[in-house]
Amino acid sequence: MSNKKVGLPKGTRDFGPKVMAKRNYIFEIIKNTFQKFGFSQIETPAMENIETLTGKYGDEGDQLLYKVLNTGDFLKDVEPKDLEDGYKKTSHKVASKGLKYDLTVPFSRYVASNYGQLVLPFKRFQIQPVWRADRPQKGRYREFYQCDADVVGSNSLLYEAEVILMIQEVFEKLQIKDYTIKLNNRKILSAFAELIQCQDKENQLFVIIDKLDKIGLEKVIDELATKGFSNAQCEQIKDFLTISGTNDEKLTKLESLFAQHNVTTQGIEESVAIIDLLKEYEYSGDELEFDVTLARGLSYYTGAIFEVKVNNVSIGSVSGGGRYDNLTKTMGLDNVSGIGFSFGIDRIYDVLEELKLFPVESLKTTQVLIAHFDKECLHYSCSIATALRKEGISTEVYPDNVKITKQFKYADKKGIPLVIVIGSDEVQTQALVLKTLATGEQEKLSLNDLIKKIKE
Amino acid sequence: MSNKKVGLPKGTRDFGPKVMAKRNYIFEIIKNTFQKFGFSQIETPAMENIETLTGKYGDEGDQLLYKVLNTGDFLKDVEPKDLEDGYKKTSHKVASKGLKYDLTVPFSRYVASNYGQLVLPFKRFQIQPVWRADRPQKGRYREFYQCDADVVGSNSLLYEAEVILMIQEVFEKLQIKDYTIKLNNRKILSAFAELIQCQDKENQLFVIIDKLDKIGLEKVIDELATKGFSNAQCEQIKDFLTISGTNDEKLTKLESLFAQHNVTTQGIEESVAIIDLLKEYEYSGDELEFDVTLARGLSYYTGAIFEVKVNNVSIGSVSGGGRYDNLTKTMGLDNVSGIGFSFGIDRIYDVLEELKLFPVESLKTTQVLIAHFDKECLHYSCSIATALRKEGISTEVYPDNVKITKQFKYADKKGIPLVIVIGSDEVQTQALVLKTLATGEQEKLSLNDLIKKIKE
Repeated sequence: MSNKKVGLPKGTRDFGPKVMAKRNYIFEIIKNTFQKFGFSQIETPAMENIETLTGKYGDEGDQLLYKVLNTGDFLKDVEPKDLEDGYKKTSHKVASKGLKYDLTVPFSRYVASNYGQLVLPFKRFQIQPVWRADRPQKGRYREFYQCDADVVGSNSLLYEAEVILMIQEVFEKLQIKDYTIKLNNRKILSAFAELIQCQDKENQLFVIIDKLDKIGLEKVIDELATKGFSNAQCEQIKDFLTISGTNDEKLTKLESLFAQHNVTTQGIEESVAIIDLLKEYEYSGDELEFDVTLARGLSYYTGAIFEVKVNNVSIGSVSGGGRYDNLTKTMGLDNVSGIGFSFGIDRIYDVLEELKLFPVESLKTTQVLIAHFDKECLHYSCSIATALRKEGISTEVYPDNVKITKQFKYADKKGIPLVIVIGSDEVQTQALVLKTLATGEQEKLSLNDLIKKIKE
Repeated sequence: MSNKKVGLPKGTRDFGPKVMAKRNYIFEIIKNTFQKFGFSQIETPAMENIETLTGKYGDEGDQLLYKVLNTGDFLKDVEPKDLEDGYKKTSHKVASKGLKYDLTVPFSRYVASNYGQLVLPFKRFQIQPVWRADRPQKGRYREFYQCDADVVGSNSLLYEAEVILMIQEVFEKLQIKDYTIKLNNRKILSAFAELIQCQDKENQLFVIIDKLDKIGLEKVIDELATKGFSNAQCEQIKDFLTISGTNDEKLTKLESLFAQHNVTTQGIEESVAIIDLLKEYEYSGDELEFDVTLARGLSYYTGAIFEVKVNNVSIGSVSGGGRYDNLTKTMGLDNVSGIGFSFGIDRIYDVLEELKLFPVESLKTTQVLIAHFDKECLHYSCSIATALRKEGISTEVYPDNVKITKQFKYADKKGIPLVIVIGSDEVQTQALVLKTLATGEQEKLSLNDLIKKIKE
């Protein structure tokens, strides 16, 4: 009876009851953690003026923007010549709005236009869908949610530490045990570029280093060589990328490396301060790894950067972020420092599935179904439902007089754990039979005792 | 310092922290109620294939659809001739997707394509934004949320009763006391059209009756006269629309009216059954008004219809819905009866503002700010923050060493009710000073006592 012809646009998804319940389980944990650290939720619209979006994500990003056709006569400014000029030059004539590509740019638009009214430091989080006209593939969608938290208007390193604490709290709540929070600092990478005298190719260097995880050290060095880095530079980069030891040891090694070359950087000092602050917060630091090879692709980071990987699960990073000094500049607001990070909800979902970490409760739906034998029993069921709902118990009454086995089947399929069966006996004696589907266990109870039992 | 040039598309809104907190207050109450009645949340994408959307909302609705420009060379199928043909004929060549106009049509698409896998009766709710290229005006936006709950795959009147119970529960939780749930049945209206022998103009009749609230009885009759209804028909309509009395009295009068004219309708029987069921649920029925003048605009309703108005507040209906027998037909799935209803979140928001019904707790943000006098105190603050957060208390540490008055100002502006002040005394004695901003009250407490006090 199902109709496969009614399809969805490629790369988009419906979330049915079970998937949605699991997603909500993750969202709730993230949301509660953000709130516990003093972040307030905001939302921005799906559509932004196209000028707000273009030019913020590089040429490739611009190509991936979804544009919304102007309403009414969208062709009114289009001339035959435009058809020859091609779509890139014409799109602004037919589409003045676009769907947001991420949460960061609309957030910086929000900050720039409301700056005078914000309580600074402004701590906000946002959980909303974004759209990218990317080629769909496993784990990559054209519509997907982002979960971001940012603080703007402060350059205190306290927030670097608190971001790490929030990540730790979310993973603890999700019961993910084996993971690594990688920490680095863009200032260290920049200083290193200075040290090997390739400041002009700094961004290229970072982009290639960022691939280390995927392609390995040898290929990174190969690529650097083809991009014109000298043998001597490649050797230095190799040494740099393979600095080893505990976090403290690595930072000490870096310090002497930079001292040797008379290059100064605040990045080391900042990293030490962040690690020290975490100790003040009584965070054990077990999951934290200072890692000079962490570069992160986005060009707007200027200080601490971090990224989270779940160990022994072959999925990319599940969270990441960093400090940026001037995100709102393109919106006409200068010198507002901020720090932000994001959880990858789709990847976290896949991790929890793979590690079987979704608790049974995350799938909880209705707690009790009331089944009944005839019309009179159905009517009696209504009053029982009201009594249970008053106690906050999620309750359904089976809607029709059908065979009791069919009613049980409904409970079973929907994952309802408890069934109250109402027969004429129960109506007369006011006692209720409570059946636990998982065990088959059956008990006769008064309404009060039954409520107590369910609430346990 | 704020930059007004960075604007939002007309008719769209940002929701800042305070507005968002209030909206979440409403969403939570609605969501909890839906879940208590056994409804599961689902989500569908913002974008649908354009064929799914067009033709479902009438010509006017089609004009209000937002279409998404095809990515890549959207002009590739457009020829110079198309520019002459005009935009209406050309839009399908440049846009194959659209933004959803409501939650109902995507839901029926979801039901049609997943029917075999659904547990029937399928009870779902959905809280998501929709988009309409309407002229923006007070209370009307181009992007707004809908909150819908529907049951499909059952024609049991139990669900009509439960919809009314859910409305009652939501309004009780929102502390809205003076409101009316209007109930009618499309079958009664159809039977009445038969009675006055205007079946051919049935929809026209309903649409005009639907205006009664706005334009009054006289103007309704005038309009009917101009639309070709005879004087005799107008008299009968007038009598019908002014049937008065209690719910039972009105239904009895209708029964004899239809009997007189030998017209039969299930609508009366159904209405009586719904009211009887509500009694079984022990619902007092105080807010319920059976009202033959309720017609509701949408053409897909076929049975019970209802609508909620808050009395003494000049805002239209804040909730409404009804039974439909064949919503999924256009998606190729026949004979699936359903019932659905919707809360108007923006209107409910306005009602709560007007009646000052948002509780202080709905605005709650961070519970405690930790303020401090110097760097050592700041470090000590971190460990206190960790202790409070472990107890689930939303806590912030002021991020910088600045004057204590500035730190208090932050708490005040952000609406944080409690401040812990850490000086060198506190670090040494391990006692903490807790200040309640609203009263100026100040207490010296141990950490444990402080946690107990806050949790109260």
